[in-house]
Amino acid sequence: MHVYLDGAYRERALASVSVDDRGFLFGDGAYEVIRVVNGRLVALDRHARRLRRTLDGLSIAPPAEAGTDALTAIIAELLARDALRDGEALIYVQITRGAAPRTHQFPIPDVRPTVYVAAAAFTPPRALRERGASVITHPDIRWGRCDLKTVNLLPNTLAKQRAVEAGADEAVLVREGVVTEGSTSNIFAVIDGELRTHPLTTHILGGVTREVTVEAAAALGVPTREAPVLLEELPHAEELFLTSTTNDVMPIARVDGQPVGTGRPGPVTLRLHHAVAERLGME
Amino acid sequence: MHVYLDGAYRERALASVSVDDRGFLFGDGAYEVIRVVNGRLVALDRHARRLRRTLDGLSIAPPAEAGTDALTAIIAELLARDALRDGEALIYVQITRGAAPRTHQFPIPDVRPTVYVAAAAFTPPRALRERGASVITHPDIRWGRCDLKTVNLLPNTLAKQRAVEAGADEAVLVREGVVTEGSTSNIFAVIDGELRTHPLTTHILGGVTREVTVEAAAALGVPTREAPVLLEELPHAEELFLTSTTNDVMPIARVDGQPVGTGRPGPVTLRLHHAVAERLGME
Repeated sequence: MHVYLDGAYRERALASVSVDDRGFLFGDGAYEVIRVVNGRLVALDRHARRLRRTLDGLSIAPPAEAGTDALTAIIAELLARDALRDGEALIYVQITRGAAPRTHQFPIPDVRPTVYVAAAAFTPPRALRERGASVITHPDIRWGRCDLKTVNLLPNTLAKQRAVEAGADEAVLVREGVVTEGSTSNIFAVIDGELRTHPLTTHILGGVTREVTVEAAAALGVPTREAPVLLEELPHAEELFLTSTTNDVMPIARVDGQPVGTGRPGPVTLRLHHAVAERLGME
Repeated sequence: MHVYLDGAYRERALASVSVDDRGFLFGDGAYEVIRVVNGRLVALDRHARRLRRTLDGLSIAPPAEAGTDALTAIIAELLARDALRDGEALIYVQITRGAAPRTHQFPIPDVRPTVYVAAAAFTPPRALRERGASVITHPDIRWGRCDLKTVNLLPNTLAKQRAVEAGADEAVLVREGVVTEGSTSNIFAVIDGELRTHPLTTHILGGVTREVTVEAAAALGVPTREAPVLLEELPHAEELFLTSTTNDVMPIARVDGQPVGTGRPGPVTLRLHHAVAERLGME
């Protein structure tokens, strides 16, 4: 397996970053995860746009590799080297501010950002989608800029770990009584026949699959409102589902051990799953 | 210059961590900064205790190097190799959950934590202490476990950068009208003759120098209360100072461009500076 790191392709086992890298010292970087289906990059433009938005939010000057053309070429090379052009793969892209002697403030002069891209084979969670995911609710203790896709991910990792320990698939985060999103996903609810998801504020990450789902719902005429779902509304939801690059539209079957609706993936969820998959060229 | 990394001493320029290190991918790790004066580790027990507390909060099993004996031996070796046994030095210790294929949940089985220790010559900011630091106030948008000393430090770095851009030395963070702490320091105020600092909650890091300062104030009979200082009280403070391992007790001369008290380091601040320095064996 190969990765792209700082301008060169390397064996993954040999790929390493300086102990002075600000990604390692401060989590000072942006990342994206991109799906690949038979060599085609899914929603690359949306991922690249969000990557540049995060870099802008961190005042990291975007390196050439943050552009779609350069990124496409790097990914194509990785897929070719590791025989990943057929079937499904996931691309991981991380850009940090670079390596410099440790100071909280940005290095002077600017250093070259560290650019890391890796590819891996991927199997979509189809069996889980058939039966629906199990989630727990968990306090959302993240910082105030969840709209930036940075590698300051400790609260996400701790929440996900708590979910796994509880035998669940995802932790749904709750801030002051409001359901914000999952630890690695966005969340939608169907309540009184209306589709609802948290609006785009600094409290959630604007997911690519979330965006496509909102577009698909509009095209299908599903009544939709980008408005907060309250924790106390969850037991009354007719349907719940997660969206993410790796999960697409993932029905939620249980919340904190209690069944959602009938306990089986609901009709709005299934319609949107197919519509989103079609828009993303997955089926 | 040498560093200690994963059980070996290496040239700093050659020291690197895997791209799969969870420090790099998630900021999933703890750190400490320890002062050394003429080869003597200042308040090592307190730093080691806090390091183990952070590791416990992250559910990272403490490696041998988190113990005071092992840490002392590693630091002694680094100081010897780099001729840092005379004068002042700073030790940086970082322990991450280790390297593993990227998943938010913890790796199964456990992997060996990454342990990184580095030493560098240090010059205390004596001139700044003479005239007092300049600070800006800045929104505190950090997560809900600021009591853990982790490398999820993006909000701290962004706040410190904002301070530097404003020509100031530190950003003092304010959460819902309450002054919590600095981006890399704790803060104390003297208001109506009483010394006040934020209590030990999940909203601040319990600083080693903060702890010693509270002890010194008690010993000196300075009326002290661990209670929040409000943003609106700052203009009325008779004295303000920061505490941190690198700054000791650092008078604040200006807040958002306005002088504090007389604009010169105040009497309580100076008494505490000397008392803390004495307790830490600095003078």
